[in-house]
Amino acid sequence: MQHASSGAFLDETVFDPTGAGPLDGLRFAVKDLVDLAGLPTGCGHPAWRDSHPRAVSHAVCVEQVLAAGARCVGKTVTDELAFSLLGENQFYGTPLNPRAPERVPGGSSSGSASAVACGLVDFAIGTDTGGSVRVPASNCGIYGLRPSHGAVSVAGVYPFAPTFDTVGLLAADLEVLIRAAGVLLAREIPAIARVRRLHVITEAFELAEPAVATSLYEAAAQLAEQLGVEVTTTSLRDIDEDAGGQALDAWYDTYCQVQWPEIWSQLGPWFQATEPELSSFAQGSLELTRKYDRSRSLAAIRRREDLAARVSRFFGPDDLLCLPTVHTPAPLKGSHSVRGFSRTYYSRALALTAISGIGRLPALSLPLAEVEGLPVGLCLMSGPGQDAFLLAAARQAVPAPVA
Amino acid sequence: MQHASSGAFLDETVFDPTGAGPLDGLRFAVKDLVDLAGLPTGCGHPAWRDSHPRAVSHAVCVEQVLAAGARCVGKTVTDELAFSLLGENQFYGTPLNPRAPERVPGGSSSGSASAVACGLVDFAIGTDTGGSVRVPASNCGIYGLRPSHGAVSVAGVYPFAPTFDTVGLLAADLEVLIRAAGVLLAREIPAIARVRRLHVITEAFELAEPAVATSLYEAAAQLAEQLGVEVTTTSLRDIDEDAGGQALDAWYDTYCQVQWPEIWSQLGPWFQATEPELSSFAQGSLELTRKYDRSRSLAAIRRREDLAARVSRFFGPDDLLCLPTVHTPAPLKGSHSVRGFSRTYYSRALALTAISGIGRLPALSLPLAEVEGLPVGLCLMSGPGQDAFLLAAARQAVPAPVA
Repeated sequence: MQHASSGAFLDETVFDPTGAGPLDGLRFAVKDLVDLAGLPTGCGHPAWRDSHPRAVSHAVCVEQVLAAGARCVGKTVTDELAFSLLGENQFYGTPLNPRAPERVPGGSSSGSASAVACGLVDFAIGTDTGGSVRVPASNCGIYGLRPSHGAVSVAGVYPFAPTFDTVGLLAADLEVLIRAAGVLLAREIPAIARVRRLHVITEAFELAEPAVATSLYEAAAQLAEQLGVEVTTTSLRDIDEDAGGQALDAWYDTYCQVQWPEIWSQLGPWFQATEPELSSFAQGSLELTRKYDRSRSLAAIRRREDLAARVSRFFGPDDLLCLPTVHTPAPLKGSHSVRGFSRTYYSRALALTAISGIGRLPALSLPLAEVEGLPVGLCLMSGPGQDAFLLAAARQAVPAPVA
Repeated sequence: MQHASSGAFLDETVFDPTGAGPLDGLRFAVKDLVDLAGLPTGCGHPAWRDSHPRAVSHAVCVEQVLAAGARCVGKTVTDELAFSLLGENQFYGTPLNPRAPERVPGGSSSGSASAVACGLVDFAIGTDTGGSVRVPASNCGIYGLRPSHGAVSVAGVYPFAPTFDTVGLLAADLEVLIRAAGVLLAREIPAIARVRRLHVITEAFELAEPAVATSLYEAAAQLAEQLGVEVTTTSLRDIDEDAGGQALDAWYDTYCQVQWPEIWSQLGPWFQATEPELSSFAQGSLELTRKYDRSRSLAAIRRREDLAARVSRFFGPDDLLCLPTVHTPAPLKGSHSVRGFSRTYYSRALALTAISGIGRLPALSLPLAEVEGLPVGLCLMSGPGQDAFLLAAARQAVPAPVA
């Protein structure tokens, strides 16, 4: 596979390792929201690239993995201003999803997922605000980690919605992902986790397409067996007793209302001053954030903190939650132009990804199932700050690949 | 007291409340690192102000307090690019420290502290990366809160070192501070906290000037009495058993090494592109961040995470730590030009403030003592995320002012 044919890369400047360590010999790529010294950080839009000074240094997360022995082999395509979960960029194209070439890779860490899935790198750095690592990982059949909020430095990384922004990782091999995560988290990942319960979130499985739910439920049952625990069926109402029948809607709505004013705070000044040409999706999304009645922030943030506190209380130190990473396999390319698609897709996808965002939970998408030959990910989450436990549990639960 | 004579304000544009709530009738001001719609966010430097688009909306934290009933009465002076703990800005002057007019107010939330101490506002929003709320609170004899990292939205707030950046509060009245903090944290603050132990950190008191240590130790003993607990003397070595005799040096060094590359990531591109005229202190500080060998990041971040994990394990949910906010009362104006002053001042001040930064702990500076008529603050800290407990404990421990 050639780099060019994947469409994953924007730039193939190489940066050599600055030290030796657990990532010796590994190649990685970096999403175009993350600074690489001397290059522009374009955030998926030429107007952003051209109206900001070039990076003078690597982002801190890049320095960490270079110091641990990895070699950077380039910069990858992202969705326009990180606004989409699909991975189709009007300026830079659609990186290849090698598992389903007629389908999208997922976004916004589209090129990072593609580069990994095409075998062009061992791991890639992405960012995940509302699913931008987990969704492309699910679509492309690879591993994707969103760490606990605040656990990995975002210095030198474009801020989108700071309350939810994280630097995450994609890899085709779980052990590689864990080694790179150990470097970014600057923590040892234990060999074994003592898991007591694996909670399957009822409403999340109900939200997924039936075939996705069935295959992922089976994957969850296998995980539980490997961990030597029973699957516990848990309703979101066990966490949030205020929730009515549409529990996930409340999480989705809360996520949106906290995120929108943040995005407008971060992008609005540049947008008003520059008046860039945006795709209709990015334009529509930005308009939503501009028109949001910001005086509602206080109530939205209260609801978020209330939910986060409930989630925190729910988790024991040895509990794992699991749910479908996203409700469907990768959509066909061009789906965004189908009437009604975006509304349905995002309300369901974000309802699933919002749980970790709101709860500040680490979340790991595992490529453990397929639906009609298309990969779908099972998302495993632990309590906030329990990233090392989550990764150790995954290591224990997922059988090593046969060489 | 007139606004003009305090030198606290950069701009006196008024923004009316957008809702009613616990902050009804209160006036507040906002540090010039925080967006107010339609105004430039200058970060204490005219070149920054002039090279960035104006804010198109209030920062999320500002929206929260407006929605809770408070009225914004202006924007306050900050140190140049938030680089100093003193509060002397070559472009905008030195806001008045009404408790010691010949001395600095402290920085970088200099104007916010001054506006509160001069009685021009009921509370002020500041930011605290390495002490920028707590130090001016101590110098000016008011309350200053640095919340847990990540607990208050930084959307619309200039990023300096994102791993440590927080939005904080200053107020002359503890109850006002608690009400405003409840709004920003979006949490109820309980009336009572069940405190089990109040730890006095030996090394921190040893680092302070003897008169400061003596008066603050007495204040700590009174707090403990109010809380009905004994003072527990605790060494940092009880937390970090690896630490040698110079335990605080390790915390200071770790803080600097994690912070420096972050600051250069955030400021470097603008600085290289704009070549602004900086004060010699800001210039020197920025040079330090530019020259730092970034390949050392990994080791520094590992040390930070190790210390943070130790701190977290140390804290019970009912433990408080206390230490001097800063080692000395407010320095005389112009001290920065005294040879050797800056090195000594910062290495001691930051060693004290770094503990909460590294541990992601909330920290509250209480104006409970004086040394030769000059205010000094006692800093109270709880475990990470225990902001509500910390504030409730302060409410319980500090007698209400006599009306």
